[in-house]
Amino acid sequence: MPSTTAILLLVCRDTPGIVAALTGFILENRGNLIDCDFHNDAESQMFLGRLEWKFDDSALCRDDLRSRLSTVCSRYDGRFELHFSDVKQRIAVFCSKQDHCLLDLLQGSQLADTNYQIALVVSNHETLRPIVDSHSIPFVHTPVTRDIKAAAEARHLELLAEHKIDLIVMAKYMQILSGTFIAAFPNVINIHHSFLPSFAGAKPYHQAHARGVKLIGATAHYATEDLDCGPIIEQEVVRISHRDSVEDLVRKGKETERTVLARAVRLHLLRRVLTYGNKTVVFA
Amino acid sequence: MPSTTAILLLVCRDTPGIVAALTGFILENRGNLIDCDFHNDAESQMFLGRLEWKFDDSALCRDDLRSRLSTVCSRYDGRFELHFSDVKQRIAVFCSKQDHCLLDLLQGSQLADTNYQIALVVSNHETLRPIVDSHSIPFVHTPVTRDIKAAAEARHLELLAEHKIDLIVMAKYMQILSGTFIAAFPNVINIHHSFLPSFAGAKPYHQAHARGVKLIGATAHYATEDLDCGPIIEQEVVRISHRDSVEDLVRKGKETERTVLARAVRLHLLRRVLTYGNKTVVFA
Amino acid sequence: MPSTTAILLLVCRDTPGIVAALTGFILENRGNLIDCDFHNDAESQMFLGRLEWKFDDSALCRDDLRSRLSTVCSRYDGRFELHFSDVKQRIAVFCSKQDHCLLDLLQGSQLADTNYQIALVVSNHETLRPIVDSHSIPFVHTPVTRDIKAAAEARHLELLAEHKIDLIVMAKYMQILSGTFIAAFPNVINIHHSFLPSFAGAKPYHQAHARGVKLIGATAHYATEDLDCGPIIEQEVVRISHRDSVEDLVRKGKETERTVLARAVRLHLLRRVLTYGNKTVVFA
Amino acid sequence: MPSTTAILLLVCRDTPGIVAALTGFILENRGNLIDCDFHNDAESQMFLGRLEWKFDDSALCRDDLRSRLSTVCSRYDGRFELHFSDVKQRIAVFCSKQDHCLLDLLQGSQLADTNYQIALVVSNHETLRPIVDSHSIPFVHTPVTRDIKAAAEARHLELLAEHKIDLIVMAKYMQILSGTFIAAFPNVINIHHSFLPSFAGAKPYHQAHARGVKLIGATAHYATEDLDCGPIIEQEVVRISHRDSVEDLVRKGKETERTVLARAVRLHLLRRVLTYGNKTVVFA
Repeated sequence: MPSTTAILLLVCRDTPGIVAALTGFILENRGNLIDCDFHNDAESQMFLGRLEWKFDDSALCRDDLRSRLSTVCSRYDGRFELHFSDVKQRIAVFCSKQDHCLLDLLQGSQLADTNYQIALVVSNHETLRPIVDSHSIPFVHTPVTRDIKAAAEARHLELLAEHKIDLIVMAKYMQILSGTFIAAFPNVINIHHSFLPSFAGAKPYHQAHARGVKLIGATAHYATEDLDCGPIIEQEVVRISHRDSVEDLVRKGKETERTVLARAVRLHLLRRVLTYGNKTVVFA
Repeated sequence: MPSTTAILLLVCRDTPGIVAALTGFILENRGNLIDCDFHNDAESQMFLGRLEWKFDDSALCRDDLRSRLSTVCSRYDGRFELHFSDVKQRIAVFCSKQDHCLLDLLQGSQLADTNYQIALVVSNHETLRPIVDSHSIPFVHTPVTRDIKAAAEARHLELLAEHKIDLIVMAKYMQILSGTFIAAFPNVINIHHSFLPSFAGAKPYHQAHARGVKLIGATAHYATEDLDCGPIIEQEVVRISHRDSVEDLVRKGKETERTVLARAVRLHLLRRVLTYGNKTVVFA
Repeated sequence: MPSTTAILLLVCRDTPGIVAALTGFILENRGNLIDCDFHNDAESQMFLGRLEWKFDDSALCRDDLRSRLSTVCSRYDGRFELHFSDVKQRIAVFCSKQDHCLLDLLQGSQLADTNYQIALVVSNHETLRPIVDSHSIPFVHTPVTRDIKAAAEARHLELLAEHKIDLIVMAKYMQILSGTFIAAFPNVINIHHSFLPSFAGAKPYHQAHARGVKLIGATAHYATEDLDCGPIIEQEVVRISHRDSVEDLVRKGKETERTVLARAVRLHLLRRVLTYGNKTVVFA
Repeated sequence: MPSTTAILLLVCRDTPGIVAALTGFILENRGNLIDCDFHNDAESQMFLGRLEWKFDDSALCRDDLRSRLSTVCSRYDGRFELHFSDVKQRIAVFCSKQDHCLLDLLQGSQLADTNYQIALVVSNHETLRPIVDSHSIPFVHTPVTRDIKAAAEARHLELLAEHKIDLIVMAKYMQILSGTFIAAFPNVINIHHSFLPSFAGAKPYHQAHARGVKLIGATAHYATEDLDCGPIIEQEVVRISHRDSVEDLVRKGKETERTVLARAVRLHLLRRVLTYGNKTVVFA
């Protein structure tokens, strides 16, 4: 059985001695450091760090560790998080009619070493209910139109609380989340079917075909109020040619979409992604 | 010694029977067909084709072949070109201060199987003269400022005629060609240091860094009056991370730029690129 | 609704005039040529060709077309096949315990534009029965041990005939097919979890980890009597580092395996793969 | 002007507290940590670490730093190295007749941010002398045949000492170095024109062509007595098809070779490569 690890994330003003202080603290409390990654962002003068250590022989219980670390980190006046690798995270998948990303996430959730479960699926269509039912996962159909969008989002927030959701994954959910919603629940990963910032907005494969590019791509990013402008987590491309119709682009692109989304979700769940400004640090 | 091949390019209205007519003609005249690529563009109803055959045992001399083929192709009322593989093409490289693309093209021109020579280098700076001199290639320095741009371009057109240039390669030439110039000499390949259409215009690496993308790229395209909007020939990307400064992006990007430009030039010289509208067909 | 196309495959001794003869024949019979790919293999002096044309306005019915084409092709004394794009091909998936390739093929079979159905699943384990049952596909469990291998293979051949199978896909089937079996049913695609010829045989991820390579890969090939030596259809790689354990290689590799296998199956079904000697021509 | 950094490499038995001790030491001596990478190898129980910090405000001079760090590291009973980023490293390029890797290394040595100089070129042929002369770099021609190999290698070792060489780069040097030579001078990077361990030994492109692989590659590794078996630093691949002759593979492969070799040399010079057993850790 693999060790439980503790993972510390810290985003703060860059100050000499942070790493020495944290690694010293971990050592004192019988944590066996297995990873230490950090980034000093030159422009913003920020420190963004991630430390991971084996928790099995810890001198402190989880609550005490959190409390003591909080004190250490408070010196640096930043954002601090502590996670444990044995806590399975709960995902709500938001989708519409396309199934390839949902199916891929369902497959991933069944792997032996997975660290998440899909606890809820929300859709503005009934199309994917049978697939979700067959996995015995709650499926909630909430139609969304302009008039009832605010009510639908309020209902979604209730559902997220009720199902104790940690992360929303927009798996080809063809709706824009409002700024209010994202302010209330900011942990949202979206997949866009283009190599952003190229072809933002609607019908990116049509745009790519019209422009005659030789590579198409997909981009996983945190959703923000500004459509397709959130911090990018992961991108990948695939080669196309003049022989490919728009339909071929859609088919080839789907493979890339599901791969990119799966990688981004995995990195997020492993607590390897930190955001600053509109960008991410990915400790891969 | 490799065979001389004849290469026919034909762009016309799509009509049944073109390939049968052309392959029949080639067979009758003792050409041994080695390649036959074509594309029927559904939207524009265009036929874009490329046929290549061994010319060694041809029943016709070059001029007769051209004249007879011209008659055959005139039925289709399109654009027709005939090339022979043993004709070395003459390139003028336009550059400014950066040397990586120029050096790569010079290297390529020395390979045994190369089908081009660099017959002229034009620059708006003196920086790269020593390199060009060491290869005994004419180097012409023509400063370009707003006031004298028209005169400089007129001088360039004279030079192109004088040196019998077939193709201009803009190897990091930091000047925009006027519509007048491109109308007079349309065979111009440019390399842009981004994955177009992302980050068109100035300072694409700065733009990419600010946006936090995870892949950067380069795009080789035919130059048109509209900056960075011409038909794309080839694109490639390279992975970056938060650790990469703008300087790192420049360094990593240069490797991609020279590779993409070299591939595009090679494809053009092998007569494997056809344009239609603002797009290319690349028979690779 | 898309047009039905006819696809001609021809492998024969290279002779001048084949393409002209075939395109002429197609034209005469009111076929609208949409693709013509061929390869003249210099070493073996073989012609390997694929022609595709719209069949909707054909002057001949399918049987007459086949009979007439057979006569045309008999001049070249080779292997000739004629296929029609509207015939759904029937696949038998052979698997053991791992599900990622099977799941991917099932997903693919549900796409709107797919041209195959999974008509049978054979396994030497019961593990994957529930998944297959949920798709209402016949699942046959036939244990294989040394003593009963011949009997099991005989049973498999009966099943293939009974279910009118066109193609076997070994989706992580951890058994070696005998030469007898492959002689009786040669259309078998296998996926090997390494970048062949590196790490043939058992435990390729362990071998890759021990050697310290920086990329791992997967290889789809036609199964032959010689393990992992059949004609290669498609390969792909993924980057790894010293941080990746053997388990990480397995996880990363699975994504590559399913992608490579899906591409190879698709290319085969579109009749884009021809074999000669121990190699393939892939008209992609 | 960029800061001078100090780089500590440590390879030792894995022991709790190493990182805390080293980061603590660096902090005490007014070093500003900018990078801390390490790997705990589960199988060998080894710690392999690299720490980098700004040296500009160091409380200690270089010699004192080295002496004090040596004391700290001696606790862990391993291999310890200290480097400074402002020391330009001296490379000897060994080559034969092919120029593409040599030209690329020469180009790289002229970049503004480069940290190496080519101080010597050794070749068993005269072919590349003019290129090297034009860069005013000493070129030594030493023919190597079986009878005089030992004498040639002895001469090479003298030259390395005389020119204070830090690293040998075998840029398509078509000779095998003896075990004696490598024992005397172990810092040798070689480039092999295949995706090792596939196609080790002679004529890898011919082997790849015969096997019908769909990707070819190149591998940069440290040279060892066993040909093509040393620790791998970097690998890359490029796609090929049945259309590519052996000559095409050579041409496409060369682009990959020079790219892979340049990356490996860069990583080595930045002290980002550590070896253990027959493998490398690359802190990229």
